[in-house]
Amino acid sequence: MKLATIQQGARTTAAIQVATGYLPLAARDLNELLAAPDWKAQAENALREHQDSMVLPAHEVTVLNPVPRPAKVICCGLNYSDHILEMGRDLPQYPTLFAKYADTLANPDDEITSTASQAVDWEAELAVVIGQQVSQATETDALHAIAGYTVANDVSMRDWQRRTLQWFQGKAFDRTTPLGPVLVTADEIDPAAGVQVTCRVNGEVVQSGNTSTLVFSAARLVSYISEFTTLRPGDIVLTGTPGGVGMGMEPPRFLSDGDQMETEIPGIGTLRNTFRLRVGSTAHTR
Amino acid sequence: MKLATIQQGARTTAAIQVATGYLPLAARDLNELLAAPDWKAQAENALREHQDSMVLPAHEVTVLNPVPRPAKVICCGLNYSDHILEMGRDLPQYPTLFAKYADTLANPDDEITSTASQAVDWEAELAVVIGQQVSQATETDALHAIAGYTVANDVSMRDWQRRTLQWFQGKAFDRTTPLGPVLVTADEIDPAAGVQVTCRVNGEVVQSGNTSTLVFSAARLVSYISEFTTLRPGDIVLTGTPGGVGMGMEPPRFLSDGDQMETEIPGIGTLRNTFRLRVGSTAHTR
Repeated sequence: MKLATIQQGARTTAAIQVATGYLPLAARDLNELLAAPDWKAQAENALREHQDSMVLPAHEVTVLNPVPRPAKVICCGLNYSDHILEMGRDLPQYPTLFAKYADTLANPDDEITSTASQAVDWEAELAVVIGQQVSQATETDALHAIAGYTVANDVSMRDWQRRTLQWFQGKAFDRTTPLGPVLVTADEIDPAAGVQVTCRVNGEVVQSGNTSTLVFSAARLVSYISEFTTLRPGDIVLTGTPGGVGMGMEPPRFLSDGDQMETEIPGIGTLRNTFRLRVGSTAHTR
Repeated sequence: MKLATIQQGARTTAAIQVATGYLPLAARDLNELLAAPDWKAQAENALREHQDSMVLPAHEVTVLNPVPRPAKVICCGLNYSDHILEMGRDLPQYPTLFAKYADTLANPDDEITSTASQAVDWEAELAVVIGQQVSQATETDALHAIAGYTVANDVSMRDWQRRTLQWFQGKAFDRTTPLGPVLVTADEIDPAAGVQVTCRVNGEVVQSGNTSTLVFSAARLVSYISEFTTLRPGDIVLTGTPGGVGMGMEPPRFLSDGDQMETEIPGIGTLRNTFRLRVGSTAHTR
């Protein structure tokens, strides 16, 4: 199944993507849906029993961030082995982890606006969405706790990221990490077998990596994180970005006002975000 | 005012600490109280109009983490100038920030248990509690957005903290950062003028610093953070720890099973936490 959070007029609901559009569910978003232990059976029942008249045509709805209210968004850096090895580095023993908050997330088609950084970079990523509470989990248990996968772009303010040793402040600007467009349930996609993660800027492919080369698989990351903190339904784990970020280019290349950023994983979908550079436009920075 | 979150039997409420005990309020905790724009007037009215019979004696209640449900817990490292200078380092231009989640927090008298680290260290800190939504704020506006202050200990798993460049995983173990015992409203305490932050282990003073030596004041931190993310009522900012952590000792000293950790700020109160070392006791690490 492909699950989404959609808006029609003032109403926001969870929904199932079907061939002809979106079938709305009772839950207001996927966070509310996933909080029900039988969420998958609920959705499968709705899909089985629905009538065509219930389906909203795609052009009548706006597709939102599918999981807008996670309590935790935990991100892994330095995780694509082909990129690490091509940089001449050793593979890491432990995942490099950092945090975001729900406020950091954006809708799949949102404009991404920078008011404080002129060194804004792309990081296409596969995102894991948790489907049941998980703590001290083996990799097998962790895999079963994954509801599904979606697409993210861990848009990073490199100047802020490098102000100190800790990356957090360059990674946690509000409404800068687009997520979506749908959550594909874990029975339909297998990142360990390999899915392609691509980022294009103004149509040019800048990143293209395969999740089969992840040092720490999705299940391994969830298991590792669960050693120190409980993950709950609707929480999100970002699995890292492949080579090709702007910071690594010579000279470094960052997003310019009006740039079109597309982040794609076949079988899930594409995030399409226009970048807006508005440094100096707020009262505080003027 | 001194505000708390207390438990009596199965019931948890916000409360005002008074000379004879705790005056319960309608809100279930300080997160719910602070979410009301007129929270301070509500509390002042309750205090003015209460009768002695409404006050619960201190021995009948358990004092909990005053703000158990923050959406954000943002922490500053390397912030006490006397400690930075004595280490021969330059004062930083920008605050070093990292994140925790609500799950990281613990009650003021909780046992702190480590199941995965044998290098657990103390970090006594002044904690800021946000009282109104703040974004792109000047220092003056940021100061007005502070509801008050409480005591925290940013207990750190040094081995996990040092596994990678990012500290997060050593700082985000569930139920390891005690907070409390009360929130003292900002009209009653001024960290810029100086409050003493002390940590004792088994009665021995290991840390003692004064907030007048903070490189980034509480208001400056809130202003700086508000440049990239919105802070809301009940969110928490930890202001960093003075010199004297165990990692800096020769040889390094970490908490042992049964150690009594006390974290104190005069005018706010004392956290009293017994440390329990239980490495190898969980199914996963066995």
